[in-house]
Amino acid sequence: MQKQSQERNITMMMDLYELTMSNGYFLQENKDTQVAFDVFFRRNPDGGGFSIFAGLEQIIEYIENMHFGPDDISYLRSLKLFDEGFLQYLSEFRFRGDVYAFPEGTIMYPNEPVITVKAGLVEAQLLETEMLAQINHQSLIATKARRIVKAADGRPVSDFGARRAHNNDAAVYGARAAFIGGVNGTATVSAGQYFNIPVGGTMAHSWVMYYKDELTAFRKFAEIYPDNCILLVDTYDVLGSGIPNAVQVFREMREKGIKSSNFGIRIDSGDLAYLTKHSRRMLDDAGFPDARIVISNSLDEYTISSILRQGGQVNSFGVGERLITSKSEPVFGAVYKLCAVEENGVMEPRIKISETVEKITNPGLKDVYRIFNEQNHAVADLIVMAGEEVDLSKPYHFIDPQMPWKKRSFVNCTARKLQVPVIQGGKRVYPYLTTTQISDYVKSQLSEEIWPEEQRFENPHLHYIDMSPAYYKMKLSLLEH
Amino acid sequence: MQKQSQERNITMMMDLYELTMSNGYFLQENKDTQVAFDVFFRRNPDGGGFSIFAGLEQIIEYIENMHFGPDDISYLRSLKLFDEGFLQYLSEFRFRGDVYAFPEGTIMYPNEPVITVKAGLVEAQLLETEMLAQINHQSLIATKARRIVKAADGRPVSDFGARRAHNNDAAVYGARAAFIGGVNGTATVSAGQYFNIPVGGTMAHSWVMYYKDELTAFRKFAEIYPDNCILLVDTYDVLGSGIPNAVQVFREMREKGIKSSNFGIRIDSGDLAYLTKHSRRMLDDAGFPDARIVISNSLDEYTISSILRQGGQVNSFGVGERLITSKSEPVFGAVYKLCAVEENGVMEPRIKISETVEKITNPGLKDVYRIFNEQNHAVADLIVMAGEEVDLSKPYHFIDPQMPWKKRSFVNCTARKLQVPVIQGGKRVYPYLTTTQISDYVKSQLSEEIWPEEQRFENPHLHYIDMSPAYYKMKLSLLEH
Repeated sequence: MQKQSQERNITMMMDLYELTMSNGYFLQENKDTQVAFDVFFRRNPDGGGFSIFAGLEQIIEYIENMHFGPDDISYLRSLKLFDEGFLQYLSEFRFRGDVYAFPEGTIMYPNEPVITVKAGLVEAQLLETEMLAQINHQSLIATKARRIVKAADGRPVSDFGARRAHNNDAAVYGARAAFIGGVNGTATVSAGQYFNIPVGGTMAHSWVMYYKDELTAFRKFAEIYPDNCILLVDTYDVLGSGIPNAVQVFREMREKGIKSSNFGIRIDSGDLAYLTKHSRRMLDDAGFPDARIVISNSLDEYTISSILRQGGQVNSFGVGERLITSKSEPVFGAVYKLCAVEENGVMEPRIKISETVEKITNPGLKDVYRIFNEQNHAVADLIVMAGEEVDLSKPYHFIDPQMPWKKRSFVNCTARKLQVPVIQGGKRVYPYLTTTQISDYVKSQLSEEIWPEEQRFENPHLHYIDMSPAYYKMKLSLLEH
Repeated sequence: MQKQSQERNITMMMDLYELTMSNGYFLQENKDTQVAFDVFFRRNPDGGGFSIFAGLEQIIEYIENMHFGPDDISYLRSLKLFDEGFLQYLSEFRFRGDVYAFPEGTIMYPNEPVITVKAGLVEAQLLETEMLAQINHQSLIATKARRIVKAADGRPVSDFGARRAHNNDAAVYGARAAFIGGVNGTATVSAGQYFNIPVGGTMAHSWVMYYKDELTAFRKFAEIYPDNCILLVDTYDVLGSGIPNAVQVFREMREKGIKSSNFGIRIDSGDLAYLTKHSRRMLDDAGFPDARIVISNSLDEYTISSILRQGGQVNSFGVGERLITSKSEPVFGAVYKLCAVEENGVMEPRIKISETVEKITNPGLKDVYRIFNEQNHAVADLIVMAGEEVDLSKPYHFIDPQMPWKKRSFVNCTARKLQVPVIQGGKRVYPYLTTTQISDYVKSQLSEEIWPEEQRFENPHLHYIDMSPAYYKMKLSLLEH
């Protein structure tokens, strides 16, 4: 299934400093000191109210397969930076630590640990780059996809982006992430193959240009694909030739007894609101009210909303470059920060105190709970000390770190712990989930648990990330230190 | 060398419509009709005056290795879209056609064919997605890198972007493209390994946070890496603790006889113009005028220019997310368009006539020349009929398609044909070039051939793409048809 990662070893997709620091830890005999790192992000893309956690499956595969081959060791030796003992250690390297994470597809918010790695110092350090690249990329695309799907308002959306993706992996894992975020399918064949995502597509302009004229091109296509005959009508002139030629072919097909719900057109350029309205009327007038209209060409949540607001007549969308690159905001900023170090058998908290307040980290080992009210709406997330009891059978006093002076409590609420064990002692303990299961999990959270107010595009409600009094006190004591 | 593509088969990284169209061509016995497709793009990113052609090496490898394995055929069969004869044909598929392209690293402009594929219809069609993804991604990053390098004004720039790249390939091929565009190195180990790019890096905040205090962390690092001791000073307070602690460690090292040009600091947050000026003064006052200052944190050509304009004191730059995603403009829009089809032994031109004038294609087989004046400056590119003689020994009359009514000529100029044979009969005929050779070729063009007026950021001169009278006449006749 996960063919690409089986065929290649991507262990060396790491920043050099992970190796130079690890060499230092090795030489100072710190390599096995137990530490904890958190993965978290600081801001939802596009001013949104939430993000979708995606990429976990690939991280698990990466961690389980991590190893340095003889070529890798030779290359590292050639850099003349590393101790021979360290290179020997690397040649036998395997990750033996523990990883906890939100289940893949969980709705996530800024500044909460979506992944926590507990391991020896070097093992934990070496995961950094690949873990971040995978989470950053797939969460970015899943989150963007959800916005586009929401704008499409129930109409199917398909990923057409491979050619504008940032290389192969971006196309293939991007298609996976887009499916997790809610698109209905992809045009990218290998993504369909690896992740069992429905694949689809229509025709290129080259099909129309290859034949002597457009009518012949349409007829030839209809002969081969009478069951799903979507004709690209904008090679020459949509309303002047494309639609009339399509209508003629549809008539010929109908005469052969083919049902007209098999028919459709795609428009890939021009004023899509105007052209779809006129095309719809021409198709209806010709007796093909169930012929579908597919549009593509630089679509995203903003253009789709605008086309529909103008009365554009569209049955489905093919979305390319603006989905697969998340063009309006192509960076997802998850980071990997040390939060605890073992000292004398105790995991002591560590904090990064930046001059920018938003960049101060949440220190120490912690648990994260999602708090639900009686209607099963997620009212807040709650960060507590690791193992701290959260008793919601009576009113639970918590601290809102934005307004710590306020007295606030959860009443008649329930809690779900968000992190689950993923890898224990280097071995996977997390189930293999299909891409469809992950996508369904996203849908169920968004329809049942997450406030609509957090899902709107403009000024969404910002989810509360609260703290237990004990956790808040611990953080404050480190800041005042 | 090109390890990743050898380890995996990326043939199926294609859009489904290439296969459904090909199945149609196969059934209609058109699969071997000779056709030509051009790759070209329509607009330079970021309002620039030129782009850098990158990714050719990976395209050659892809084309040479293209094949469908048994798993691929089984998957395609499961879609129930394809004729058994076609699947049999695919299982034996090899590209046997010809590919011509600009040498990798060539400065390129909109609307000229940077790659031309001449092959049987199905063979040419199946290359589309991977070729575009590779060219779009690498040309995007190379072009962005050049802008950032230009802004850095002679100071070294290093790629620190892997963690924010759009997955593995984007990090690794992005580092390659950035090097082609002029950056001096990368932090991404596998990119260094595959493409022989210098790798570098400093330390993460985790190093500083791991130790009990910042001073200990710096001392420990200096012990291990006295030859290149760049200390990250912004974990707690740059001017209050970071620089004073760094200075103390530098003094201790100097007392041990280590030369101070080995020392440096990195600042990764805060007001970089302000902090570098003050840090410089503190280092100078402490007697370390040759300690280097490295900065990072969301840099691009705009922030770098601004920091330098404010008098920021910087020796080198680590550039991450805004380079590796080309954040300000993350889409490079190269397309693959049919330009000619064999009819009765003659390659007849094909044109796409869009309702948007800029989207009208340049039809037919053609040659592209770069025209140089007596000072060896590239004054224009010239599109002519394939094989058409370009005699510059006397004044050469050409057509500027933007102003076809003007009488214009090249006088005392020379011409270089831009496309070279890359693959002939399915076999590579293009030399293997090192990444350094390609990068040097970019530098030599920009310093010797390309007008500075085309290289500025604001309102760059737009390179002329002219046509021979014969070519212009042919295009016009198709438009009037």
